[in-house]
Amino acid sequence: GSVLVLNSGSSSLKYQLVNPVGGEAIAKGTIERIGESSGIVTHKFAGNTTRREQPVADHGAALEVALGLFEEIGPRLSEAGIYAVGHRVVQGGELFSGPVIVDDEALEKMESLVPLAPLHNPANIQGIRVARQLLGDVPHVAVFDTAFFQDLPPEAYTYAIDRDVADRYAVRRYGAHGTSHQYVAGKIARVLGRRVQDLNSIVLHLGNGASVSAVKGGVPIETSMGLTPLEGLVMGTRSGDVDPAVVFHLARNAGMSIDEIDDLLNKRSGLKGLAGENDMRELHRMVDEGDPDANLAFSVYVHRIKKYIGAYAALLGRVDVIAFTAGIGENDALTRTAVIDGLEPFGIAIDEDRNEARSDDPRIISPEWTKTLVMVVPTMEELAIARQCVEAVETART
Amino acid sequence: GSVLVLNSGSSSLKYQLVNPVGGEAIAKGTIERIGESSGIVTHKFAGNTTRREQPVADHGAALEVALGLFEEIGPRLSEAGIYAVGHRVVQGGELFSGPVIVDDEALEKMESLVPLAPLHNPANIQGIRVARQLLGDVPHVAVFDTAFFQDLPPEAYTYAIDRDVADRYAVRRYGAHGTSHQYVAGKIARVLGRRVQDLNSIVLHLGNGASVSAVKGGVPIETSMGLTPLEGLVMGTRSGDVDPAVVFHLARNAGMSIDEIDDLLNKRSGLKGLAGENDMRELHRMVDEGDPDANLAFSVYVHRIKKYIGAYAALLGRVDVIAFTAGIGENDALTRTAVIDGLEPFGIAIDEDRNEARSDDPRIISPEWTKTLVMVVPTMEELAIARQCVEAVETART
Ligand SMILES: Nc1ncnc2c1ncn2[C@@H]1O[C@H](COP(=O)(O)OP(=O)(O)O)[C@@H](O)[C@H]1O
Ligand SMILES: Nc1ncnc2c1ncn2[C@@H]1O[C@H](COP(=O)(O)OP(=O)(O)O)[C@@H](O)[C@H]1O
Repeated sequence: GSVLVLNSGSSSLKYQLVNPVGGEAIAKGTIERIGESSGIVTHKFAGNTTRREQPVADHGAALEVALGLFEEIGPRLSEAGIYAVGHRVVQGGELFSGPVIVDDEALEKMESLVPLAPLHNPANIQGIRVARQLLGDVPHVAVFDTAFFQDLPPEAYTYAIDRDVADRYAVRRYGAHGTSHQYVAGKIARVLGRRVQDLNSIVLHLGNGASVSAVKGGVPIETSMGLTPLEGLVMGTRSGDVDPAVVFHLARNAGMSIDEIDDLLNKRSGLKGLAGENDMRELHRMVDEGDPDANLAFSVYVHRIKKYIGAYAALLGRVDVIAFTAGIGENDALTRTAVIDGLEPFGIAIDEDRNEARSDDPRIISPEWTKTLVMVVPTMEELAIARQCVEAVETART
Repeated sequence: GSVLVLNSGSSSLKYQLVNPVGGEAIAKGTIERIGESSGIVTHKFAGNTTRREQPVADHGAALEVALGLFEEIGPRLSEAGIYAVGHRVVQGGELFSGPVIVDDEALEKMESLVPLAPLHNPANIQGIRVARQLLGDVPHVAVFDTAFFQDLPPEAYTYAIDRDVADRYAVRRYGAHGTSHQYVAGKIARVLGRRVQDLNSIVLHLGNGASVSAVKGGVPIETSMGLTPLEGLVMGTRSGDVDPAVVFHLARNAGMSIDEIDDLLNKRSGLKGLAGENDMRELHRMVDEGDPDANLAFSVYVHRIKKYIGAYAALLGRVDVIAFTAGIGENDALTRTAVIDGLEPFGIAIDEDRNEARSDDPRIISPEWTKTLVMVVPTMEELAIARQCVEAVETART
């Protein structure tokens, strides 16, 4: 059977029907602008893309639209045979260190974590609720973005704040993008024919959201996202690291409310805040045209990544692999060059021919002479979620 | 002549009479608990320490007490010959990239920077005002903690937030402890008989406040303190880096006000927040007694420093020197060992005999075989301020 993977955002639903054995996406689609006057629906199957504009009232309606497209355009879900539905959930707190089969108790636990992820978890939970109603006869599995990082050591997940306050309000580093970091770390080992236990890797997930992890022998020892996905690298619209006193300063001097500053740092910062543009391809075009803001944005972006590479190298002691993944990491040779530039003294370099060769496969882009391999490893979060679903269901059955 | 260096905190005044040529402190003292029912006064001169408890109403009264002690215990200021008074000021914003002779215009500029340093600048300004009244016939010079870091490159001082907001409210990285970082970077070169232009150093200023800088050929290229001295390393009572969303989370879920969260992160966090104790000597005692909180606090402290060393090494490309300074950096062999531990693969190590040998002189504590030197370089902020005063006064005269 196949697994239907759902990713419910606040105003979008992404779905993918995955063959967890072969690994291919059988069909996939997105429904955007849920709740707005006109929604955008895209469905891809058998090489064809269907695109429609139609109002989509809520997540329930969105899922109905998706199920309708499977019937209308294909593949028929009854024929494809759905083995399980997998749900991506951003925040699993300390309650979930792996995938879980959704029942009322699990949903209650997820509800209890909403204060930790007010921007994300409510939509994730909403997506699970409607999917259980419409697809009631298969197991639903929640896969948490934070689960992989529940293995972080205390010195990495502990913030240096008052312990009572931290305990009472569950303030610690949870990380995010865990499914991607875990998948890429495992994939590196398979590609190299090595055991994951023997490899130290730095994984750079550079998409609209961006994060970096240090994985030592398969176990994460540090990651850049924190209590929320705001901390760390410069992202499309998120600031990443700033002095926390920036919040106090703006509250006092700009008269901004907490919600306004939250909105500023999450949605109007990052590349977009610096250059007015959060799409990396567009940013490069602006740099080419001599736009100084775009130029600064790119150098701030790269500077931050370099710092994290160095920081995590110091923690790992020995770095076997630096892996680039996600939209920018997989596709943007310019970013990869700029990030690695200057690291030659540490035995880290890029071979420009390898870097520029286009491919969808995992590949090495460093020259022969370096000890640290630089790689591009396409992430497959949906496949990873699908496989975790199968594992969870099989474990539950035995 | 000598220079009287003043450091006015919110409830304290520290003073030191310095010979800017020889470099020695002729006399020094502190007046603590200004404004409280009983103040604590300490004056050191010619090997003797005078200690008194007496109410000290305000900074004006504090300076009068200090001047009285010079007359009573010595040395008489009229005989010592004061050439200038140097004032340490925390925040110079973008207005001051070096020392300035204080006049009404300079004071006005400093006033305009109070929103950037509401915890520090008002007391600094207050100290300057009373000193100008009581010591009106010598030049007063303000030396800014941020001045050295005005040379940071844009990719280091720019936060990835909305540029309009950043410009309007002067939000950027200013750094702090600049006088110390600059002094230590210069001292390293003199001790090694090298030119500062030829050296890349990482300077770890580890006191109650703590910060780290990367100095490339004498020019700072990155530092850990940010808009305010809250960002960066774990400190005695400050958190250093946290996800800025921690502020949103506590405001929403703990019902804390901005002022309360500011107080939490600046005064009830860091080592004190984690272990209830901000004095490193005491923390070691607690670790020895098996206190798990103290143990965690120390590992979080060390972990953060390691990350910064790696980050700054990646920026520098080649690291000639890692220098420890300030209370912990100069005195605590245990911290130095823990920080350097695990960096051997990068050619960074400590020789334990050298590390444990006690001395007040700048010294190398790495073994012979490493390319990167690890050093202990006592900071002398007062001397550095005194010398900058002399330079400013002499420049103004020519
Ligand atoms: N060919 C490409 N060259 C450069 N950047 C690209 C390319 N393709 C996609 N990107 C960038 O990838 C980013 C989106 O990454 P993605 O992983 O899809 O984001 P997310 O899943 O976090 O929404 C955008 O900044 C986009 O510009
Ligand atoms: N001999 C020592 N061993 C370990 N730590 C020390 C020693 N002497 C001072 N310290 C530590 O130095 C810190 C104060 O550093 P200092 O530079 O004086 O701080 P400030 O930032 O207030 O100037 C305290 O944590 C103190 O415990």
